Amino acid sequence: MTEPIADWETLAASKRSAVSKKIPLEWRLPSSLTSQISSTSTLNVLDVPRECGILTSNELDLTEKYDATDLVDLMSSGKVKSYDVTLAFCKRAAIAQQLVNCCTEIMFDEALVRARQCDDYLANEGKPMGPFHGLPISLKDSFNVKGTQTTIGYVSFLAHPPAASNSILVDILFRHGAVFYVKTNLPQSMMTADSHNNIFGRTLNPNKLCLTAGGSTGGEGALIKLRGSIMGLATDIAGSNRIPALCNGISSFKPTAGRIPFGRKVPPGRIGSPGSILPVIGPEGHSVRDYELFMRTVIDSEPWDFDENTLNVPWRRVELFTRPLKFGLIRGHPKRPLHPTIARALHSAATVLKEAGHSVVLLDDKIPDLYETGMLAYKYFMLDPKATPKQYVDASGEPWVPSIKGANFPELAGWKPSLDDVWEMNVERAKVLKVYHDLVVENRLDAILMPGYQATAVPHDTYGLALYTVLQNLLNYPAGILPYLQANRQLDEPFINKEANYEPLYDPDTFEGAPGAVQIVGKPMKDEELVEILKVVERVLNKP
Amino acid sequence: MTEPIADWETLAASKRSAVSKKIPLEWRLPSSLTSQISSTSTLNVLDVPRECGILTSNELDLTEKYDATDLVDLMSSGKVKSYDVTLAFCKRAAIAQQLVNCCTEIMFDEALVRARQCDDYLANEGKPMGPFHGLPISLKDSFNVKGTQTTIGYVSFLAHPPAASNSILVDILFRHGAVFYVKTNLPQSMMTADSHNNIFGRTLNPNKLCLTAGGSTGGEGALIKLRGSIMGLATDIAGSNRIPALCNGISSFKPTAGRIPFGRKVPPGRIGSPGSILPVIGPEGHSVRDYELFMRTVIDSEPWDFDENTLNVPWRRVELFTRPLKFGLIRGHPKRPLHPTIARALHSAATVLKEAGHSVVLLDDKIPDLYETGMLAYKYFMLDPKATPKQYVDASGEPWVPSIKGANFPELAGWKPSLDDVWEMNVERAKVLKVYHDLVVENRLDAILMPGYQATAVPHDTYGLALYTVLQNLLNYPAGILPYLQANRQLDEPFINKEANYEPLYDPDTFEGAPGAVQIVGKPMKDEELVEILKVVERVLNKP
Repeated sequence: MTEPIADWETLAASKRSAVSKKIPLEWRLPSSLTSQISSTSTLNVLDVPRECGILTSNELDLTEKYDATDLVDLMSSGKVKSYDVTLAFCKRAAIAQQLVNCCTEIMFDEALVRARQCDDYLANEGKPMGPFHGLPISLKDSFNVKGTQTTIGYVSFLAHPPAASNSILVDILFRHGAVFYVKTNLPQSMMTADSHNNIFGRTLNPNKLCLTAGGSTGGEGALIKLRGSIMGLATDIAGSNRIPALCNGISSFKPTAGRIPFGRKVPPGRIGSPGSILPVIGPEGHSVRDYELFMRTVIDSEPWDFDENTLNVPWRRVELFTRPLKFGLIRGHPKRPLHPTIARALHSAATVLKEAGHSVVLLDDKIPDLYETGMLAYKYFMLDPKATPKQYVDASGEPWVPSIKGANFPELAGWKPSLDDVWEMNVERAKVLKVYHDLVVENRLDAILMPGYQATAVPHDTYGLALYTVLQNLLNYPAGILPYLQANRQLDEPFINKEANYEPLYDPDTFEGAPGAVQIVGKPMKDEELVEILKVVERVLNKP
Repeated sequence: MTEPIADWETLAASKRSAVSKKIPLEWRLPSSLTSQISSTSTLNVLDVPRECGILTSNELDLTEKYDATDLVDLMSSGKVKSYDVTLAFCKRAAIAQQLVNCCTEIMFDEALVRARQCDDYLANEGKPMGPFHGLPISLKDSFNVKGTQTTIGYVSFLAHPPAASNSILVDILFRHGAVFYVKTNLPQSMMTADSHNNIFGRTLNPNKLCLTAGGSTGGEGALIKLRGSIMGLATDIAGSNRIPALCNGISSFKPTAGRIPFGRKVPPGRIGSPGSILPVIGPEGHSVRDYELFMRTVIDSEPWDFDENTLNVPWRRVELFTRPLKFGLIRGHPKRPLHPTIARALHSAATVLKEAGHSVVLLDDKIPDLYETGMLAYKYFMLDPKATPKQYVDASGEPWVPSIKGANFPELAGWKPSLDDVWEMNVERAKVLKVYHDLVVENRLDAILMPGYQATAVPHDTYGLALYTVLQNLLNYPAGILPYLQANRQLDEPFINKEANYEPLYDPDTFEGAPGAVQIVGKPMKDEELVEILKVVERVLNKP
């Protein structure tokens, strides 16, 4: 790295302006509306795309009435054009960007050209390009798209040229017909839950602007919730795929590490970690069957031929689950007690699952201390003696974003690991792994039902530790988030625990209306089964 | 550890004597024969079991005419009794022990009781116990068998009580009908290729006693070659399953790490390594179809339910390969040039494979420097700041065995790794991985044909570095050894390279008669395919 860039703010502003110019004038929201947008507003902007008049009625239908599986079917059969679908999602993403600041790179022109290619291919060849024929897919900024910059929110990365090649997964999806039209916002360093950096600023939560959109794949979360995307690609090493899902009220799926190719992405830190936690790619979106489409398509394309770190393990076809399922239930830790909305969501989910014939076994007093387990996991993120993310930040002179402060265990402040420490951490991890493994086997559990976080989306920069999501990364167990219920002062009131030290503080006004969620954790390498289990739970939770 | 045990030699002698007493008097070889046994003798003892008169003609047939698959079929159909098979292998193992010092623990009495149980089960239930019904299987000493000691050749471990439970794999095989009758010798610390320690002494090569039996699973190699075992369980982190196979002239199979449960074994060093090389269990034996039986049986029994570190990946049924195969060919490194016998074996194997319709692509100048790659791999074995194996040795006052000296890269003498070094090693490893991956994919290779070592079995304590086997551990590619040809002064002569600096030195007299071998390397997680490829190669190489 060379010496700090004198004027990082000008550089960042110039990048924002270049991106902003890619939104056509006719897709701009009136300033009467945009002037209300702020990170302290309690505004819910979910209805703006429908009400602002920028999308036609058909475009509203295309973006709202279907999931990805439906859309691909419609396009593959020629009933709907990829061009029309892509245009509709470009418009809606442009609106989302103006509302919640969720995008980093805008590729509308390229996407519309590509969509026409898909339509032409179908017309000329009489068959779709593949299982993603014509489908617009949004991407976390850390994915490389040839010809587009990948800055991942480091000002110093503004000096990088546009990507010379696609990420491996982008290549695979492209070959199967996908259309790429936006990349989305993420936190500086990717290690906080607020998608906020000094290039692109902060992504807001469309349900309530004063709340966090989550992170690190928070741009996706907000964009997808506004239906500016039907499905987006996230990554996850401590919850980055799941936190935005639970904050925004959408669903997501984090597979077992090694099943989806991770190659040719831009990492926020040093490569070559000797840690035991691997990053994972997984989708955020609207329906579990879309995640099955994603997993099946990617793995059927034999990604291990393109990425030496992808496990050569075929996607198994499993039967729909019709038998009663058995869930373990984890209800949280006293140091991060569940906010009333989440306590109610979890209680209600367990109740309706039991009513639907499934069974639930309480695991609370059988698992290792969740706070300690989380701290162990976070240690694995601190193994770089070179502190590479700090170098990337320092290189431009930009400051750290404020949420970084609360994003680590205070007990670990100043901790400098030795090689010997890593041996001991691995022994600790092995013990945790064995307890969960044995609990699952001995109780014949199909999955674990637990919170993804102790609260709904919280005010900006107060998310803190990702205790309830980092666990599955430490274990390398697949997991999914399903949206469920929302904060409701009246309904939540009976779930208030007077003894609890809520962190962040619980104040019903702050959270009113924020979406709730539950997390379902599967068994390692049983991603196929977890998808089916998620379908069952999705159906049960959505029953009127 | 407490202070050194004053008289380690007495302790070791007492253990040896206790083991030796478990060989019945009527199975003892005459002193006229045993007096000829020494580590400097050029004697080939392969015919002793047949000629010594201890086994009946039927017992000779049972131990010589079949592979494990055959024997299980005969026992499962009731044509042959497990008791008779077990007795025959106990006798033959007793003979082997007297000839080449290959056993550590003798469990003949327990085995014969167990064999009767298997026979009774079949008689009473009308069905076999499982796919290993009644089959005697030998075990490297590091496997735990309840009630038997696991000293793994550390004098200080003589203070340990007998194992309180079985290794997970032992449990699984037991449940499927296996009979355990001996544990076998290995090197002090398991990190040299001479199966030699201060408790049990040195295992000799039955083909020529002055040559090494290999290691670390050398007791198995020698025992199996003498047909004192039909199949034995080895481990491999640098070649420990393959080196004894190529030294003794038998075959072996090292699967991808994580497919066979490794739990509840006794490790020679510290657990919790942050290194990128995982130990693997694989069988040594007489026929590739036996390895398929082993892999299928173990993985079909869902070992991930018993071992949290085993990958939940079912054993796939793959078709027999009838199409022509494509092999990459690696012929070695100038720092460890191939001895004439191995050069001839490799040349001949490539030739007969081509004659059989397969194709061979030379990879020599496309791969990363094999010596450097080997050194990188060895660094991963040096990551323990506590030097735990040294502590285990020092605890008793026993000296290091002599082969330890040559078992490491001189360039790494005194190297003390830092946490930062491990990051850099991982980056180096990633590069090596990518080159091999891309070569395999771009050339559409089914497998790689290469040496398992630069020589045949070599004189004791001269094996040196395991360059050609540690590569597959670094890559985590599965691999197998197939025996092929033998050292023959006349036939080898044209393969002498006058320019080569042979290490160890090549002297035709020393090696005459030693078995040759080739190594076949498969693709990661494609253990199923590698087994089928090995069957094809086994057939081609054995064609008269």
